[in-house]
Amino acid sequence: MSKAPQMTDDRFYLRRGPFSLGEIAELAKVDLAVGAPRDLLIRGIAPLESATADDLSVFCDVRHADAFAATHAGAVVTSARLGERPHNGNWLLTARDPRYAFAVIGLMFYPRCAVEPGVQAGAHVDPSAAVGEGCRIDPGAVIGAHVRLGAHCHIAANAVIGAGVEIGEGSVVAANATISHALLGANVRIGSGTVIGGEGFGVVPGPTGLICSAQLGRVIIGDNVRVGGNCTIDRGAVGDTVIGANTMLDNLVQIAHNVRIGRNCVFAGQAGVAGSVTIGDGVMVGGAVSISDHLVVGSNARIAGKSGVARDIADGETVGGYPAVPIRQWHRQTTSLARLGQKPEA
Amino acid sequence: MSKAPQMTDDRFYLRRGPFSLGEIAELAKVDLAVGAPRDLLIRGIAPLESATADDLSVFCDVRHADAFAATHAGAVVTSARLGERPHNGNWLLTARDPRYAFAVIGLMFYPRCAVEPGVQAGAHVDPSAAVGEGCRIDPGAVIGAHVRLGAHCHIAANAVIGAGVEIGEGSVVAANATISHALLGANVRIGSGTVIGGEGFGVVPGPTGLICSAQLGRVIIGDNVRVGGNCTIDRGAVGDTVIGANTMLDNLVQIAHNVRIGRNCVFAGQAGVAGSVTIGDGVMVGGAVSISDHLVVGSNARIAGKSGVARDIADGETVGGYPAVPIRQWHRQTTSLARLGQKPEA
Amino acid sequence: MSKAPQMTDDRFYLRRGPFSLGEIAELAKVDLAVGAPRDLLIRGIAPLESATADDLSVFCDVRHADAFAATHAGAVVTSARLGERPHNGNWLLTARDPRYAFAVIGLMFYPRCAVEPGVQAGAHVDPSAAVGEGCRIDPGAVIGAHVRLGAHCHIAANAVIGAGVEIGEGSVVAANATISHALLGANVRIGSGTVIGGEGFGVVPGPTGLICSAQLGRVIIGDNVRVGGNCTIDRGAVGDTVIGANTMLDNLVQIAHNVRIGRNCVFAGQAGVAGSVTIGDGVMVGGAVSISDHLVVGSNARIAGKSGVARDIADGETVGGYPAVPIRQWHRQTTSLARLGQKPEA
Repeated sequence: MSKAPQMTDDRFYLRRGPFSLGEIAELAKVDLAVGAPRDLLIRGIAPLESATADDLSVFCDVRHADAFAATHAGAVVTSARLGERPHNGNWLLTARDPRYAFAVIGLMFYPRCAVEPGVQAGAHVDPSAAVGEGCRIDPGAVIGAHVRLGAHCHIAANAVIGAGVEIGEGSVVAANATISHALLGANVRIGSGTVIGGEGFGVVPGPTGLICSAQLGRVIIGDNVRVGGNCTIDRGAVGDTVIGANTMLDNLVQIAHNVRIGRNCVFAGQAGVAGSVTIGDGVMVGGAVSISDHLVVGSNARIAGKSGVARDIADGETVGGYPAVPIRQWHRQTTSLARLGQKPEA
Repeated sequence: MSKAPQMTDDRFYLRRGPFSLGEIAELAKVDLAVGAPRDLLIRGIAPLESATADDLSVFCDVRHADAFAATHAGAVVTSARLGERPHNGNWLLTARDPRYAFAVIGLMFYPRCAVEPGVQAGAHVDPSAAVGEGCRIDPGAVIGAHVRLGAHCHIAANAVIGAGVEIGEGSVVAANATISHALLGANVRIGSGTVIGGEGFGVVPGPTGLICSAQLGRVIIGDNVRVGGNCTIDRGAVGDTVIGANTMLDNLVQIAHNVRIGRNCVFAGQAGVAGSVTIGDGVMVGGAVSISDHLVVGSNARIAGKSGVARDIADGETVGGYPAVPIRQWHRQTTSLARLGQKPEA
Repeated sequence: MSKAPQMTDDRFYLRRGPFSLGEIAELAKVDLAVGAPRDLLIRGIAPLESATADDLSVFCDVRHADAFAATHAGAVVTSARLGERPHNGNWLLTARDPRYAFAVIGLMFYPRCAVEPGVQAGAHVDPSAAVGEGCRIDPGAVIGAHVRLGAHCHIAANAVIGAGVEIGEGSVVAANATISHALLGANVRIGSGTVIGGEGFGVVPGPTGLICSAQLGRVIIGDNVRVGGNCTIDRGAVGDTVIGANTMLDNLVQIAHNVRIGRNCVFAGQAGVAGSVTIGDGVMVGGAVSISDHLVVGSNARIAGKSGVARDIADGETVGGYPAVPIRQWHRQTTSLARLGQKPEA
């Protein structure tokens, strides 16, 4: 079992290319160093440490300066400033945002390619389902009654799509995911094991103990949304849970019923949002953050990792801590607390 | 794709009714306003914002007073006090607990209806399994050897019920859930992706590295328990993990081996309970709470969201914080800390 | 439905034995009390509370002294010191580490036995996959193209093994787990619902909104690794995510892309590690701990439950708190804070 491939592992990835430095520079809109051979062929992408003369790598974080100094990569995408660091004379492609440029180049070599279309043996597709052209349905996938799949969707092995669900064109539902009571846009990607449309948690105390109220809403997911693995997004109680276009969720994220999230938000791993929270556009939520129910988080707010948010957050505000406070206040609190902790007990 | 339905979405919900205001008032034991037309037919349930004259809605939180003032709902369930707020002259049904009354009415319009019984094509049922009458087994579900299912259970698509498991009458196991080494009561509902009966985490350091001790117990789940999506409830090491009747778990909750939980408890999303904790009846555990191993939490205790509990909690005690302390003390700590954080550094 | 078995429940466990006290003492390398009948047959294992004269139990925690005093167990594994506590005259087996000895004895009575080999009806095995001898593939499991399974692996019901994955001999993948883009060693155990090899979370802001960079690496898992239920371990972005041999993960643990973890580490439930963190050998990570991205955690470090780690941790260091600080400092902080909280507000 080879454990240190120089490029990507051919067992898992289908590489396009090669591409010339000139093609790459043009497509990713990066600047090629003066004198660089525009015809030089680049065959793959690799980390600085293992890249060879055929590979392109990236240097976008000063912590990797040593690896940059020693890399054998044929070419390296970096910024003008980082490119001044010592290196082996590799050809540099400079970009204002090297991470973005490298992401674009990565999708050039490894496009999210359409898998071979077709309903595989062992898939269970209800006769009333409408499956768009070019869809791929893997073995063990279950497509319920009246489901509508747009063109070129991929429903992976053992995923379950409940009755009535609609999924837009080009979307991917990974293995063992479960989707019900939901309308998904185009180019949505749902990770393995994720559950969308589960019953919201509406526990009501009654005279003879707790009861769960009926959960009668839906989940509405916009175009280009990305949900990681083993997340849970509950359907609304009355009304909908909404995830805006281009919002990205990492793994193990919990979104409760009737939450409304805007566009271009980022939720890192294990974040959780309680019921009926409203979140604007462009919000960045750190890992393991918890947001209490019925709050409002303004657009472009940022929440530091592991914070516990217990009050509304204004547009553009950055908060941290448990309970979360403005980030500078949190840093001062932390410093003060550390000082208390350093004094030996009297 | 219609995104703003006036009622529930017929693709996902089968609505009963219509019911007259009089029927509703009687069944939900609510008071109908004097002069209200007992024969008025109500066809569905909707949020205040989108309800029409055919719909019944609920107003139980003063934060929605504006929506109440503007709603077109034919009738609204509320409390006597909230009902005094300005509104459009909609017919009011007043209840001591409008949330509970609305939950009861919701289950009247949308009963947890028995799905069509039968073992669907593509289900895998071991010949030694005993499947009660009226059960529904969906495609891809796997029912192991000697499993016993009570009457009218629903095992959804791609769920896996391991050998020897017993599930009581009227229970539902959602898609892609996994149950092993467990005995479940009647009317239990297990969410999608949840894992019940997995091997407890019994790591023991030994002379040649860590080993995992055999985990030889079971999970015992009482009647009417509700478990959300992507939870994990491990079986006991020696002896059982127990969840008492009528206890409700939200999503992504972790219950470790040999935990014993009483009746009528509530665990919000992403809460976690470490091994051998004992929890009484009627305990409310907030979202993302963590409870350390071997502790005792008394009946009717309440634990604020995101707390880290590191000591026993008495009956009826309310705690918060990390580490958790009595809730008033936590609020004072938080206030003091905020004051430290507001002072500019000297 | 019997809820209080005296031993393990025969519906779920196949018990070996009986074994004599002498055999047990020899195999587990424990000391048998002077005068103990080496021929006494022990038939099973049970908790102190329910053990009978045929059973062996364990007493390794002084909190169970009352149960030890009252137990009817035929024999009890304990330490020399705990064995001095009052008891019923049960035969004692004394060990330096009674938990370890009991774990060894548990695996003697209940070995992780090979299930009956064979590809079950309803399994989907790609013709290009190489399935080792003695493997067991359960109904609904999906084995992709060019997968390689070593001898005596068990792929449980509805698990999905993606194209190209390699799994070493004697490994077990539990029901509804999903594995892709990964190479697993021998004797690895993956819990139900766990997702290995999912796309890492590489969100990059671009001129027209967020994009996700291609994730082109793998997950490499060493021998004897144990992963619990509903975990997520993402593949590397460029390069690999690595879990060293003999490391043990509890449930709902999140390991992000390009994390590198050493050998013999322990991660308790709901812990999370952000991208590109490097962790040494023998590290103990408590439940619900969060570790921020790109940090380095030294070997034999220990992190208290629910901590938020935001800086590097040295070899052998013990930390706690949010943000995490040396453990004694955290305890002093906690004490100081509690003092602040006890003062009534002036």
